[in-house]
Amino acid sequence: MASSILFMSVSVDGYIADENDFLGGADGERLHEWMADGGEVMEEMANGGAVVTGRRTAELMDHWGGSLMGGVPVFVPSHRPPSPAARWGGYTNVHYVADIATAMAQAKEAAGDKHVHVQGGVTAQEALAAGVLDELQLSQVPVLFGRGRRLFDVLPGEIELEVVRVVDTASATHLRYRVKR
Amino acid sequence: MASSILFMSVSVDGYIADENDFLGGADGERLHEWMADGGEVMEEMANGGAVVTGRRTAELMDHWGGSLMGGVPVFVPSHRPPSPAARWGGYTNVHYVADIATAMAQAKEAAGDKHVHVQGGVTAQEALAAGVLDELQLSQVPVLFGRGRRLFDVLPGEIELEVVRVVDTASATHLRYRVKR
Repeated sequence: MASSILFMSVSVDGYIADENDFLGGADGERLHEWMADGGEVMEEMANGGAVVTGRRTAELMDHWGGSLMGGVPVFVPSHRPPSPAARWGGYTNVHYVADIATAMAQAKEAAGDKHVHVQGGVTAQEALAAGVLDELQLSQVPVLFGRGRRLFDVLPGEIELEVVRVVDTASATHLRYRVKR
Repeated sequence: MASSILFMSVSVDGYIADENDFLGGADGERLHEWMADGGEVMEEMANGGAVVTGRRTAELMDHWGGSLMGGVPVFVPSHRPPSPAARWGGYTNVHYVADIATAMAQAKEAAGDKHVHVQGGVTAQEALAAGVLDELQLSQVPVLFGRGRRLFDVLPGEIELEVVRVVDTASATHLRYRVKR
Protein backbone atom coordinates (compact mmCIF):
# COMPACT_ATOMS: atom_id res chain seq x y z
CA MET A 1 0.00 0.00 0.00
CA ALA A 2 1.34 3.44 -0.90
CA SER A 3 2.38 5.77 1.91
CA SER A 4 0.97 9.30 2.02
CA ILE A 5 3.75 11.83 2.60
CA LEU A 6 3.35 15.55 3.22
CA PHE A 7 6.10 17.56 1.53
CA MET A 8 6.33 21.13 2.76
CA SER A 9 8.97 23.84 3.11
CA VAL A 10 8.63 25.68 6.38
CA SER A 11 10.46 28.41 8.28
CA VAL A 12 11.96 27.61 11.71
CA ASP A 13 8.98 29.37 13.30
CA GLY A 14 6.52 27.22 11.37
CA TYR A 15 5.33 29.49 8.57
CA ILE A 16 4.71 28.41 4.98
CA ALA A 17 3.60 31.78 3.60
CA ASP A 18 4.13 35.41 4.49
CA GLU A 19 1.48 37.67 6.03
CA ASN A 20 0.04 38.40 2.60
CA ASP A 21 -0.36 34.65 2.22
CA PHE A 22 2.31 34.58 -0.46
CA LEU A 23 3.56 31.01 -0.46
CA GLY A 24 7.29 30.68 0.16
CA GLY A 25 7.74 34.16 1.70
CA ALA A 26 7.69 37.75 0.56
CA ASP A 27 9.40 37.03 -2.75
CA GLY A 28 7.77 33.60 -3.08
CA GLU A 29 11.21 32.04 -3.09
CA ARG A 30 12.89 32.16 0.33
CA LEU A 31 11.49 28.81 1.46
CA HIS A 32 12.24 27.15 -1.86
CA GLU A 33 15.85 28.22 -2.41
CA TRP A 34 17.06 24.87 -1.03
CA MET A 35 15.61 23.16 -4.10
CA ALA A 36 18.57 24.36 -6.17
CA ASP A 37 20.75 21.83 -4.33
CA GLY A 38 18.07 19.56 -2.88
CA GLY A 39 19.43 16.32 -4.37
CA GLU A 40 17.81 13.18 -3.00
CA VAL A 41 14.95 15.03 -1.29
CA MET A 42 13.95 16.66 -4.58
CA GLU A 43 14.07 13.30 -6.33
CA GLU A 44 11.83 11.69 -3.72
CA MET A 45 9.40 14.60 -3.90
CA ALA A 46 9.08 14.30 -7.65
CA ASN A 47 8.67 10.54 -7.60
CA GLY A 48 5.12 10.24 -6.24
CA GLY A 49 2.48 8.14 -7.97
CA ALA A 50 -0.40 10.49 -7.15
CA VAL A 51 -0.98 13.87 -5.53
CA VAL A 52 -3.44 15.09 -2.91
CA THR A 53 -3.57 18.88 -2.84
CA GLY A 54 -5.83 21.65 -1.60
CA ARG A 55 -8.35 23.28 -3.87
CA ARG A 56 -6.88 26.73 -3.47
CA THR A 57 -3.41 25.65 -4.56
CA ALA A 58 -4.87 23.61 -7.40
CA GLU A 59 -6.83 26.57 -8.72
CA LEU A 60 -4.00 29.08 -8.27
CA MET A 61 -1.81 26.71 -10.31
CA ASP A 62 -4.58 26.19 -12.88
CA HIS A 63 -4.33 22.47 -12.02
CA TRP A 64 -0.82 22.51 -13.47
CA GLY A 65 -2.45 22.00 -16.84
CA GLY A 66 -2.79 18.35 -15.77
CA SER A 67 0.98 17.84 -15.94
CA LEU A 68 2.01 17.94 -12.27
CA MET A 69 4.89 15.55 -11.60
CA GLY A 70 4.78 14.20 -15.12
CA GLY A 71 1.00 13.98 -15.24
CA VAL A 72 0.18 11.72 -12.28
CA PRO A 73 -3.44 11.79 -11.06
CA VAL A 74 -4.27 14.69 -8.75
CA PHE A 75 -6.96 14.44 -6.07
CA VAL A 76 -8.55 17.56 -4.63
CA PRO A 77 -10.78 17.24 -1.54
CA SER A 78 -13.68 19.65 -2.08
CA HIS A 79 -17.46 19.64 -1.97
CA ARG A 80 -17.82 22.00 -4.90
CA PRO A 81 -17.40 20.97 -8.53
CA PRO A 82 -14.08 21.86 -10.19
CA SER A 83 -13.65 25.25 -11.81
CA PRO A 84 -12.82 25.50 -15.51
CA ALA A 85 -9.25 25.73 -16.71
CA ALA A 86 -7.99 29.32 -16.67
CA ARG A 87 -4.73 29.49 -18.55
CA TRP A 88 -3.57 26.30 -20.09
CA GLY A 89 -6.55 25.28 -22.14
CA GLY A 90 -7.80 22.46 -19.96
CA TYR A 91 -6.59 19.65 -17.76
CA THR A 92 -7.17 15.97 -17.37
CA ASN A 93 -6.52 13.49 -14.61
CA VAL A 94 -7.63 15.89 -11.85
CA HIS A 95 -10.28 14.45 -9.54
CA TYR A 96 -12.48 16.44 -7.17
CA VAL A 97 -13.48 14.21 -4.25
CA ALA A 98 -15.85 15.20 -1.44
CA ASP A 99 -13.66 14.44 1.58
CA ILE A 100 -10.00 13.95 2.50
CA ALA A 101 -10.33 10.29 3.52
CA THR A 102 -11.89 9.30 0.19
CA ALA A 103 -9.41 11.46 -1.73
CA MET A 104 -6.51 9.73 0.05
CA ALA A 105 -7.92 6.24 -0.49
CA GLN A 106 -8.35 6.90 -4.23
CA ALA A 107 -4.89 8.47 -4.43
CA LYS A 108 -3.29 5.44 -2.73
CA GLU A 109 -5.07 3.14 -5.15
CA ALA A 110 -3.81 5.22 -8.08
CA ALA A 111 -0.24 5.51 -6.75
CA GLY A 112 0.43 1.78 -6.92
CA ASP A 113 3.81 1.11 -5.29
CA LYS A 114 4.82 4.79 -5.29
CA HIS A 115 3.95 7.28 -2.55
CA VAL A 116 1.07 9.74 -2.47
CA HIS A 117 2.50 13.27 -2.49
CA VAL A 118 0.46 15.46 -0.14
CA GLN A 119 0.81 19.25 -0.16
CA GLY A 120 -0.79 22.32 1.37
CA GLY A 121 -1.35 23.54 4.93
CA VAL A 122 -5.11 23.02 5.11
CA THR A 123 -4.80 19.63 3.43
CA ALA A 124 -2.09 18.62 5.91
CA GLN A 125 -4.24 19.61 8.89
CA GLU A 126 -7.28 17.79 7.49
CA ALA A 127 -5.28 14.66 6.67
CA LEU A 128 -3.76 14.58 10.16
CA ALA A 129 -7.16 15.12 11.77
CA ALA A 130 -8.68 12.34 9.68
CA GLY A 131 -5.78 10.00 10.47
CA VAL A 132 -4.86 9.45 6.81
CA LEU A 133 -1.38 11.01 6.73
CA ASP A 134 1.47 8.49 7.08
CA GLU A 135 4.60 10.66 6.98
CA LEU A 136 5.82 14.25 7.03
CA GLN A 137 8.81 15.49 5.04
CA LEU A 138 9.50 18.98 6.36
CA SER A 139 12.20 21.05 4.72
CA GLN A 140 12.97 23.45 7.54
CA VAL A 141 14.62 26.57 6.18
CA PRO A 142 16.96 28.58 8.46
CA VAL A 143 14.87 31.73 8.66
CA LEU A 144 12.33 33.17 11.10
CA PHE A 145 9.48 34.72 9.12
CA GLY A 146 7.96 36.29 12.24
CA ARG A 147 4.40 36.19 10.88
CA GLY A 148 2.29 34.71 8.12
CA ARG A 149 0.36 31.52 7.49
CA ARG A 150 1.35 28.53 9.61
CA LEU A 151 1.73 24.98 8.39
CA PHE A 152 0.13 23.26 11.37
CA ASP A 153 -1.55 26.08 13.28
CA VAL A 154 -4.10 24.33 15.51
CA LEU A 155 -4.88 20.60 15.39
CA PRO A 156 -7.66 18.68 17.19
CA GLY A 157 -5.24 16.78 19.44
CA GLU A 158 -1.68 15.71 20.21
CA ILE A 159 -0.04 13.43 17.63
CA GLU A 160 3.11 11.44 18.31
CA LEU A 161 5.72 11.22 15.56
CA GLU A 162 8.81 9.10 14.98
CA VAL A 163 11.99 10.53 13.45
CA VAL A 164 12.67 8.51 10.29
CA ARG A 165 15.55 10.48 8.78
CA VAL A 166 17.31 13.84 9.02
CA VAL A 167 19.17 15.27 6.03
CA ASP A 168 21.39 18.13 7.22
CA THR A 169 22.30 20.73 4.58
CA ALA A 170 23.20 24.41 4.83
CA SER A 171 20.10 25.55 2.95
CA ALA A 172 17.54 23.40 4.82
CA THR A 173 17.21 20.63 7.38
CA HIS A 174 15.03 17.92 5.87
CA LEU A 175 13.14 16.15 8.63
CA ARG A 176 11.21 12.97 7.84
CA TYR A 177 8.70 11.86 10.45
CA ARG A 178 6.33 8.90 10.59
CA VAL A 179 2.92 9.55 12.15
CA LYS A 180 2.33 7.08 15.01
CA ARG A 181 -1.15 5.58 15.24
CA MET B 1 32.82 38.06 24.33
CA ALA B 2 30.29 35.48 25.52
CA SER B 3 27.60 34.30 23.07
CA SER B 4 23.97 34.40 24.11
CA ILE B 5 22.24 31.11 23.30
CA LEU B 6 18.56 30.33 23.60
CA PHE B 7 17.97 26.75 24.81
CA MET B 8 14.40 25.57 24.33
CA SER B 9 12.56 22.30 23.80
CA VAL B 10 9.83 22.65 21.23
CA SER B 11 7.28 20.43 19.47
CA VAL B 12 7.43 20.04 15.67
CA ASP B 13 4.53 22.49 15.42
CA GLY B 14 6.38 25.09 17.48
CA TYR B 15 4.78 24.82 20.91
CA ILE B 16 6.64 24.99 24.23
CA ALA B 17 3.65 24.58 26.54
CA ASP B 18 0.21 23.04 26.33
CA GLU B 19 -3.04 25.00 26.10
CA ASN B 20 -3.12 25.37 29.89
CA ASP B 21 0.32 26.94 29.57
CA PHE B 22 1.91 23.97 31.29
CA LEU B 23 5.52 24.04 30.17
CA GLY B 24 6.68 20.86 28.46
CA GLY B 25 3.20 19.57 27.62
CA ALA B 26 0.19 18.14 29.45
CA ASP B 27 2.29 16.15 31.90
CA GLY B 28 5.08 18.75 31.96
CA GLU B 29 7.49 16.13 30.64
CA ARG B 30 6.83 15.26 26.99
CA LEU B 31 9.18 17.95 25.64
CA HIS B 32 11.87 17.13 28.20
CA GLU B 33 12.06 13.34 27.88
CA TRP B 34 15.05 13.66 25.54
CA MET B 35 17.11 14.96 28.47
CA ALA B 36 17.45 11.41 29.82
CA ASP B 37 19.82 10.67 26.94
CA GLY B 38 20.74 14.20 25.91
CA GLY B 39 24.52 13.76 26.22
CA GLU B 40 26.52 16.62 24.74
CA VAL B 41 23.55 18.95 24.36
CA MET B 42 22.73 18.61 28.08
CA GLU B 43 26.35 19.30 28.98
CA GLU B 44 26.45 22.45 26.84
CA MET B 45 23.16 23.64 28.30
CA ALA B 46 24.45 23.27 31.85
CA ASN B 47 27.76 24.94 31.12
CA GLY B 48 26.67 28.59 30.82
CA GLY B 49 28.36 31.37 32.76
CA ALA B 50 25.17 33.37 33.33
CA VAL B 51 21.42 33.07 32.68
CA VAL B 52 18.86 35.44 31.19
CA THR B 53 15.34 34.27 31.95
CA GLY B 54 11.82 35.67 32.04
CA ARG B 55 10.29 36.94 35.25
CA ARG B 56 7.42 34.48 35.16
CA THR B 57 9.68 31.44 34.95
CA ALA B 58 11.98 32.90 37.59
CA GLU B 59 9.09 33.40 40.02
CA LEU B 60 7.46 30.05 39.30
CA MET B 61 10.82 28.44 40.08
CA ASP B 62 11.30 30.64 43.17
CA HIS B 63 14.52 31.86 41.52
CA TRP B 64 15.89 28.32 41.87
CA GLY B 65 16.88 29.33 45.38
CA GLY B 66 19.82 31.11 43.72
CA SER B 67 21.37 27.77 42.69
CA LEU B 68 20.49 27.54 38.97
CA MET B 69 23.30 25.87 37.02
CA GLY B 70 25.52 25.71 40.06
CA GLY B 71 24.73 29.24 41.20
CA VAL B 72 25.68 31.36 38.19
CA PRO B 73 24.26 34.90 38.11
CA VAL B 74 20.71 35.14 36.80
CA PHE B 75 19.41 38.26 35.01
CA VAL B 76 15.68 38.93 34.78
CA PRO B 77 14.47 41.71 32.46
CA SER B 78 11.63 43.43 34.32
CA HIS B 79 10.54 46.92 35.28
CA ARG B 80 9.14 45.87 38.64
CA PRO B 81 11.26 45.08 41.70
CA PRO B 82 11.84 41.40 42.49
CA SER B 83 9.34 39.49 44.60
CA PRO B 84 10.41 37.89 47.85
CA ALA B 85 11.56 34.27 48.00
CA ALA B 86 8.60 31.89 48.36
CA ARG B 87 9.90 28.46 49.21
CA TRP B 88 13.61 28.19 49.63
CA GLY B 89 14.34 30.86 52.20
CA GLY B 90 15.90 33.44 49.94
CA TYR B 91 18.15 33.72 46.94
CA THR B 92 21.26 35.59 45.96
CA ASN B 93 22.87 36.41 42.68
CA VAL B 94 19.56 37.17 40.92
CA HIS B 95 19.48 40.58 39.22
CA TYR B 96 16.36 42.40 38.05
CA VAL B 97 17.28 44.67 35.16
CA ALA B 98 14.90 47.08 33.42
CA ASP B 99 15.32 45.93 29.81
CA ILE B 100 16.50 42.95 27.79
CA ALA B 101 19.46 44.72 26.17
CA THR B 102 20.91 45.80 29.52
CA ALA B 103 20.20 42.40 31.06
CA MET B 104 22.04 40.71 28.21
CA ALA B 105 25.01 43.10 28.38
CA GLN B 106 25.39 42.48 32.12
CA ALA B 107 24.98 38.74 31.66
CA LYS B 108 27.68 38.66 28.97
CA GLU B 109 30.00 40.59 31.25
CA ALA B 110 29.31 38.11 34.07
CA ALA B 111 29.65 35.02 31.86
CA GLY B 112 33.29 35.63 31.03
CA ASP B 113 34.38 33.12 28.39
CA LYS B 114 31.28 30.93 28.87
CA HIS B 115 27.97 31.43 27.10
CA VAL B 116 24.90 33.23 28.36
CA HIS B 117 22.08 30.71 28.71
CA VAL B 118 18.81 32.30 27.55
CA GLN B 119 15.43 30.67 28.27
CA GLY B 120 11.74 31.40 27.95
CA GLY B 121 9.43 32.22 25.05
CA VAL B 122 8.80 35.87 25.84
CA THR B 123 12.48 36.42 26.61
CA ALA B 124 13.44 34.80 23.31
CA GLN B 125 11.07 37.04 21.36
CA GLU B 126 12.30 40.16 23.16
CA ALA B 127 15.96 39.24 22.68
CA LEU B 128 15.42 38.59 18.97
CA ALA B 129 13.52 41.85 18.56
CA ALA B 130 16.26 43.78 20.38
CA GLY B 131 18.99 42.09 18.31
CA VAL B 132 20.80 40.67 21.36
CA LEU B 133 20.36 36.93 20.74
CA ASP B 134 23.36 35.27 19.06
CA GLU B 135 22.29 31.64 18.71
CA LEU B 136 19.32 29.29 19.05
CA GLN B 137 19.60 25.72 20.29
CA LEU B 138 16.21 24.15 19.60
CA SER B 139 15.55 20.63 20.79
CA GLN B 140 12.75 19.68 18.42
CA VAL B 141 10.74 16.81 19.86
CA PRO B 142 8.87 14.45 17.47
CA VAL B 143 5.35 15.31 18.53
CA LEU B 144 2.62 17.65 17.29
CA PHE B 145 0.96 19.33 20.28
CA GLY B 146 -1.77 20.84 18.14
CA ARG B 147 -2.30 23.83 20.44
CA GLY B 148 -0.72 25.71 23.33
CA ARG B 149 1.86 28.44 23.80
CA ARG B 150 4.24 29.01 20.89
CA LEU B 151 7.96 29.63 21.19
CA PHE B 152 8.22 32.31 18.51
CA ASP B 153 4.61 33.26 17.81
CA VAL B 154 4.87 36.67 16.11
CA LEU B 155 8.10 38.64 15.65
CA PRO B 156 8.55 42.21 14.37
CA GLY B 157 10.32 41.12 11.19
CA GLU B 158 12.06 38.40 9.21
CA ILE B 159 15.35 37.15 10.68
CA GLU B 160 17.85 35.08 8.72
CA LEU B 161 19.59 32.20 10.49
CA GLU B 162 22.55 29.98 9.69
CA VAL B 163 22.59 26.26 10.50
CA VAL B 164 25.54 25.66 12.84
CA ARG B 165 24.98 22.03 13.83
CA VAL B 166 22.33 19.32 13.78
CA VAL B 167 22.40 16.50 16.34
CA ASP B 168 20.05 13.75 15.18
CA THR B 169 18.68 11.46 17.91
CA ALA B 170 15.49 9.43 18.18
CA SER B 171 14.12 11.48 21.08
CA ALA B 172 14.85 14.95 19.64
CA THR B 173 16.54 16.75 16.76
CA HIS B 174 18.87 19.36 18.24
CA LEU B 175 19.16 22.28 15.84
CA ARG B 176 21.78 24.96 16.49
CA TYR B 177 21.33 28.20 14.53
CA ARG B 178 23.31 31.42 14.45
CA VAL B 179 21.32 34.64 14.12
CA LYS B 180 22.59 36.61 11.11
CA ARG B 181 22.92 40.35 11.58
